[in-house]
Amino acid sequence: MRNIKLVLAYDGTAYCGFQVQRGSGLPTIQETLEKCLASLAHTETQVTAAGRTDAGVHARGQVVNFHTGTWNIPTERIVPALNSVLPPDIAAVSAQEVPFDFHARYSAVSKTYSYTIDNGPVPSPFWRFYSYYVRHPLDEGRMKAATAFLLGEHDFSSFQAAGRPVKSAVRTIYRAEVTRDGRLVRLEIEGNGFLYQMVRIIAGTLIRVGLGRWPPERVGDILAARSRAAAGPTAPPQGLCLEYVKY
Amino acid sequence: MRNIKLVLAYDGTAYCGFQVQRGSGLPTIQETLEKCLASLAHTETQVTAAGRTDAGVHARGQVVNFHTGTWNIPTERIVPALNSVLPPDIAAVSAQEVPFDFHARYSAVSKTYSYTIDNGPVPSPFWRFYSYYVRHPLDEGRMKAATAFLLGEHDFSSFQAAGRPVKSAVRTIYRAEVTRDGRLVRLEIEGNGFLYQMVRIIAGTLIRVGLGRWPPERVGDILAARSRAAAGPTAPPQGLCLEYVKY
Repeated sequence: MRNIKLVLAYDGTAYCGFQVQRGSGLPTIQETLEKCLASLAHTETQVTAAGRTDAGVHARGQVVNFHTGTWNIPTERIVPALNSVLPPDIAAVSAQEVPFDFHARYSAVSKTYSYTIDNGPVPSPFWRFYSYYVRHPLDEGRMKAATAFLLGEHDFSSFQAAGRPVKSAVRTIYRAEVTRDGRLVRLEIEGNGFLYQMVRIIAGTLIRVGLGRWPPERVGDILAARSRAAAGPTAPPQGLCLEYVKY
Repeated sequence: MRNIKLVLAYDGTAYCGFQVQRGSGLPTIQETLEKCLASLAHTETQVTAAGRTDAGVHARGQVVNFHTGTWNIPTERIVPALNSVLPPDIAAVSAQEVPFDFHARYSAVSKTYSYTIDNGPVPSPFWRFYSYYVRHPLDEGRMKAATAFLLGEHDFSSFQAAGRPVKSAVRTIYRAEVTRDGRLVRLEIEGNGFLYQMVRIIAGTLIRVGLGRWPPERVGDILAARSRAAAGPTAPPQGLCLEYVKY
């Protein structure tokens, strides 16, 4: 038996998030993956994910781990075998054997998410499932200035949605960058962990700053308030993508 | 009455091409656009397109023209009005009044198409509708060298599919570039006109060169042969995009 670290990319458009919703009948990434693993391994296989992405959220570098049990496929055959049975909106990117104390979620050192905004004159048909359309011009310089307040260790209670209570809302943000490439404005943010919907609330807040409605400094005040009501709205899921998990 | 030049972007995935297929019941871009125009103008409106893209082919810069007839909407209101009724996979990008002798197809000076190849280690879920997946590594330097033989005026009979006979297969290619950005290899080609499936046959031929199966010089021999049998296979439609039409 081996412990396998598997990197996944998926278009989350057609799924009700990563996590299995037992008995709901709703399609999830986890359920789809576990069914494919079971069909190959001829035994039930459970996976553990680094981040439980919400409905409509994408991943280019989701990481899961699972035990091979009685399945004695060579590790280098796992990716082609999985891709032969996975639907085209989910791809196995790489697989490697890792020690048994490796846990996709608890062993993670940092996660990097991106949030993409379509800021073109009209919504692009090509970005409708992968971005949030904002009609009014965003000043990415102001958004960049606002990210400075997020860096380092903070209590992010203001950037946490209700629904998944945690003991501590203290997280560390290592990196937060805002860039523009033509019509697309992109936030990339790396941290040691993220609260429920934290990146989407950060994106919604930065959009308010980029529209000129809030000064960049307001992000500091929002953090200090430790209240969800202080921050901006939750940006929609389709702009969000789990890019990379570091171990 | 005015003659309107309208620029369109569309994701062609869900459509059986641009052109109306009368009585077929199949969804096309033209039919969808004309229905939206009719619902706004309260009168039948026919559009003429620069290029009749095939099923699954995309456009970022398709151009159509139509006469406003009795519809007296201000020209600057046409784009927002259309986008309020068009489905999200079709976008009106810009509209301007043009002289009555402007014809989207016959007035075009050049058209630019792109062809996108996903050359990553496994097919990307994000590019499955917008690229052709080629597993083996492509040498884009070889493909670049091959494009040199296409430049200028040639008889492109070898790069023409059956089905849309034309008087002359002579066309001029002004520009042909092959670039790589990570996993994506992209052909961009500008010419005064393109034969039926010409860009897709060129793409299929360049892929053979990029795989090392044919030397770049072979493209010169293929042109000289003036026979479809000499060229490579027709690359699939979803990699193709009509980027820009120059007048």
